[in-house]
Amino acid sequence: MTRGTRLWAEPHHDGSALHSPEAAAATLGDVVPVLLRVPHAGPGVQAVHVRRLHDGEPFYTAAEVVRRDEHDTWWQARLPLRNRMTHYRWLLDDGPDGYRWVNAAGTWSHDVTDAADFVVSTYRPAPDWAVDGVVYQVFPDRFARSGVDHGPLPDWAVPAEWGDPVEHTGPETPLQLFGGDLAGVEQHLDHLARLGVDILYLTPFFPAASNHRYNASSFDRVDPLLGGDEALASLVRAAHRAGIRVMGDLTTNHTGDTHEWFLAAQADRSSPEASFYYFFDEGPQPQHGPRGEVAAADGPDYEAWFAIPSLPKLDHASPELRRRMVEGPGSVVARWLEGPDGLDGWRIDVANMTGRRADDDHNHEVARAVRRTMDETKPDSFLLAEHFHDTSDDVTTGAGGWDAVMNYAAFTRPVWEWLAEPGCRIGFLGLPVEVPRKRTEDVVAAMRQFAAAVPWHQALQNVNNIGSHDTPRARTVFGSDEALLVGAALLVGYPGIPMVFAGDELGLEAEDGEHARTPMPWDDDDRFAGAVLEAYAGLLGLRRRSTALRRGGMRWLCAGEDDMAWLREAPGERVAVVVARAASTVDLPVSLLGEPTLLWRSPGATVEAGATVVQVQLPGPGAVVLRCG
Amino acid sequence: MTRGTRLWAEPHHDGSALHSPEAAAATLGDVVPVLLRVPHAGPGVQAVHVRRLHDGEPFYTAAEVVRRDEHDTWWQARLPLRNRMTHYRWLLDDGPDGYRWVNAAGTWSHDVTDAADFVVSTYRPAPDWAVDGVVYQVFPDRFARSGVDHGPLPDWAVPAEWGDPVEHTGPETPLQLFGGDLAGVEQHLDHLARLGVDILYLTPFFPAASNHRYNASSFDRVDPLLGGDEALASLVRAAHRAGIRVMGDLTTNHTGDTHEWFLAAQADRSSPEASFYYFFDEGPQPQHGPRGEVAAADGPDYEAWFAIPSLPKLDHASPELRRRMVEGPGSVVARWLEGPDGLDGWRIDVANMTGRRADDDHNHEVARAVRRTMDETKPDSFLLAEHFHDTSDDVTTGAGGWDAVMNYAAFTRPVWEWLAEPGCRIGFLGLPVEVPRKRTEDVVAAMRQFAAAVPWHQALQNVNNIGSHDTPRARTVFGSDEALLVGAALLVGYPGIPMVFAGDELGLEAEDGEHARTPMPWDDDDRFAGAVLEAYAGLLGLRRRSTALRRGGMRWLCAGEDDMAWLREAPGERVAVVVARAASTVDLPVSLLGEPTLLWRSPGATVEAGATVVQVQLPGPGAVVLRCG
Repeated sequence: MTRGTRLWAEPHHDGSALHSPEAAAATLGDVVPVLLRVPHAGPGVQAVHVRRLHDGEPFYTAAEVVRRDEHDTWWQARLPLRNRMTHYRWLLDDGPDGYRWVNAAGTWSHDVTDAADFVVSTYRPAPDWAVDGVVYQVFPDRFARSGVDHGPLPDWAVPAEWGDPVEHTGPETPLQLFGGDLAGVEQHLDHLARLGVDILYLTPFFPAASNHRYNASSFDRVDPLLGGDEALASLVRAAHRAGIRVMGDLTTNHTGDTHEWFLAAQADRSSPEASFYYFFDEGPQPQHGPRGEVAAADGPDYEAWFAIPSLPKLDHASPELRRRMVEGPGSVVARWLEGPDGLDGWRIDVANMTGRRADDDHNHEVARAVRRTMDETKPDSFLLAEHFHDTSDDVTTGAGGWDAVMNYAAFTRPVWEWLAEPGCRIGFLGLPVEVPRKRTEDVVAAMRQFAAAVPWHQALQNVNNIGSHDTPRARTVFGSDEALLVGAALLVGYPGIPMVFAGDELGLEAEDGEHARTPMPWDDDDRFAGAVLEAYAGLLGLRRRSTALRRGGMRWLCAGEDDMAWLREAPGERVAVVVARAASTVDLPVSLLGEPTLLWRSPGATVEAGATVVQVQLPGPGAVVLRCG
Repeated sequence: MTRGTRLWAEPHHDGSALHSPEAAAATLGDVVPVLLRVPHAGPGVQAVHVRRLHDGEPFYTAAEVVRRDEHDTWWQARLPLRNRMTHYRWLLDDGPDGYRWVNAAGTWSHDVTDAADFVVSTYRPAPDWAVDGVVYQVFPDRFARSGVDHGPLPDWAVPAEWGDPVEHTGPETPLQLFGGDLAGVEQHLDHLARLGVDILYLTPFFPAASNHRYNASSFDRVDPLLGGDEALASLVRAAHRAGIRVMGDLTTNHTGDTHEWFLAAQADRSSPEASFYYFFDEGPQPQHGPRGEVAAADGPDYEAWFAIPSLPKLDHASPELRRRMVEGPGSVVARWLEGPDGLDGWRIDVANMTGRRADDDHNHEVARAVRRTMDETKPDSFLLAEHFHDTSDDVTTGAGGWDAVMNYAAFTRPVWEWLAEPGCRIGFLGLPVEVPRKRTEDVVAAMRQFAAAVPWHQALQNVNNIGSHDTPRARTVFGSDEALLVGAALLVGYPGIPMVFAGDELGLEAEDGEHARTPMPWDDDDRFAGAVLEAYAGLLGLRRRSTALRRGGMRWLCAGEDDMAWLREAPGERVAVVVARAASTVDLPVSLLGEPTLLWRSPGATVEAGATVVQVQLPGPGAVVLRCG
């Protein structure tokens, strides 16, 4: 139990409305105000300038003091948006003591590169329904059975009863079919409404020779095992009536080896489809799985994702592939968005590898082509990219492509390494180590560095999760319901769109990504009446009602031994979030919090407002959310 | 006087031959060994892995111990070069204590973005003559008069006598003509040889209505005031005979408003040349000088560099401009390199802004086009870009373009803010503050962060300076000959190609960039027989004779109150560099230095080798260079 590092004494700026009031709707050529808060508690400054890049050259503009309040002096400068993305940071002139820089990662007495500069983007932002929403991820085979008969099972399927254990290690892993379907999803939309989510993201619904369907055999129809095209249209209609948007999942990186394109390509190497893939005329080539090299003799005679022969990689240098898959009205991307019963967006599988192979890199072109097609078809649609590591290149150099990423690197990893149960033996999301339990200061340092690597608007529209169909369940990594709910509080309290993987809200457990594809236990009344679901719904409800939590700035307050706290600030509303992974006492200044109102707390948590300090006490893993007075 | 932070206890890797023995000549698809040294002095590690990006996805490979020596355990992994640039870093598995990352910026207990990853490039490296050379920058009007009569002066010129003070503030600044010429340079090549430089970089020699000639009126001929085409050919021939390469200076960003292209464009807006510029059909537009906005009514009706009407900006969207200026055999870029008397390379003026304007960004395309044209014309030529801020985007995202940058951000700035005379009142290279004297730890932090932002090979082939024709003289900023020579020792000891601005080696003074364009004082026998020139020649000679100084790795040893030290290590040769800006005592471990041999020292410096420590004492600003035993 410590009283923590006082981060509130640092100067602060971000891209939110309090500090960048005109940035969100800015267009090229605008001149927008930007404001820096310099706390009275820190060293005084003699002058403040903003440094911006203008056609690739740094320019400086002096700021002036526009306001002084109890806590801060506010400096304002005007920022001309010369380029599509305007990079800038602040220079604090400390007079004889030299100068410091303020960038999105903090305040620095040494010179810094441009990597953590603030950025105003003039690309159109993600749609409001996405930025203000909450995503619920459903793996169709495991969510719910409707009872509708979809005919005989295919040969590959190994049928399972709903209560059977999930096969997650042997060769039957991708073949075990529980028989969830889209009508089953439709029947349970009331659960989504009760939980408080408003975006349904379905992992693939295309036909495929597996339960996960990431090896599509066609992009032209919905798998009959899921109920076919009509079942999807019905689900989307019902969801839209309930105020829920629906997103599909598309593999732009590869198809299945049973895909009609791939079969045509293999049958005739002079077919148009042959240009869609990388065939090795010289026979099998060395290919690389995630654990290293695969001998050429074992491999297929075409490029395959992670050297898995059933997943031939697509070659986006092919204009015909681009036309059929991503570009224009006839493309796969366009066709499923069309009409009132069309999807509201796409999640793109393996987006970070799409169009990339050896000397080829079409990634940003493909991302922009997808976005353009979506804009032409349904301008209000949302484009979410799977991405497991540093996303900054793909969302800044590649700006104008993916609207958002699945924010594993900037959110999931630091949250896991903060909340992991001591002695956790679970592998760490592809790293060759088990999930560590890191020092809070290291976790906050990582969160700040990754957040600073992308523009502010990007952090708000990225999709955060504490687990997905590709990871162990958070409940298992964190080791208790209490710690799981700290993760849920982080999902709601940290900037970004929360995503809940179906079943996490019930505290389901699983030790790897395959294992996590758990059939929903609809008959388990205890779980559906339990404290975990109630807390999830309560926390998600906070976000729905709070502009500050959805759109507000992000200002770190403190980081202690086992606790961290920050402010989310919007015009007229300020919310403080305090989370702890073990018993903690957190003292926060009254000058910042005023007389706070309790919005949410874990069992046993107390808040006491004194003359100068608001003291939050947590008896164990827990969270407190306060509205500042 | 402190004994400094012991940086030698950190794990170490870089792209040099000891740690990446096959990286320098690597091509796409190679698998190369990389080695990490883990000092016995630091915490032990249980396992080491290398994390690399492969088609945009992180892959991990285990390293194994291949060697243990007195100081370090050496871990080796094999790195497949899947993409043109392979980004990688090390993971140290500390077992129950978690893991750490080693990237080019240091060792981290928190997660890090990819910005400071190590990088192996498979683009062809800069030519050896450049990487191993020393550049000498000559401003032709101010270097030497040959006495040859070049005819009457143009109307704009304000003639000056060689000993006149340099006009550096008023309207006559660009007009004052001292009358240096290319034959004058040729007559003084012996000075270059004596100093030990082997690359002559001439600021522009094209005709122009100014003494600096950055506002060219043609790219087709050498200014007759400098002696015309024949004088250049004669100078290049003589330089080549003396083993000296010659580089020209080209403005790809703009021309002068007296340029034949611009005159043709203004005379006829339907001419091919009209497409070379940005004309505003709607009349003058708001334009931005370096200090902020310029009112539209005051401005020209075309885009101009820094809103200066005499410098109309080029529009590289024009295919005809590309053809005439940068692409293919008939282009300006090609024509001056052709033949045995052709130039050996180009320095590109305002390279960071070239091709960039508002929504247009052709910068990387133009850089690659210039490089391609140079490869076709003279494959062994060198392409150097002016660049005043963080260069990482332009040399990594833009890899395959500029070979090198003028390394102001990563070298000049930190050296200035370390060596600046206390109370220095000189403006800091465009920043709205005077040059500070920063803490050594801040300076080293900046040097490490900027070095880590570019690939290793790039640091070796970038061109470092402590002053140029665009800056105050280093002697004036640093305040003493002793401190100037610390700057010279940094030029020689730090990775990168040293550039000496003519006159710095004589200790000339100047308080701004215009003022620095000093006529060389050829009659000042004291300076030419002085200690400053002797020290410069001695230090540059060290570099010529030392593979470690030219190509060796860069490993920080320590940073004290007023001192810093590092090792440059090549197979078979290790050199330690110790620099101080004030009286200092530096203790270095014998386990690293062995029994050292003195290569160079400032007056009064002493080196004493004890049983465990080599102690370097410096009585004031100074440097010591040691060969390790």
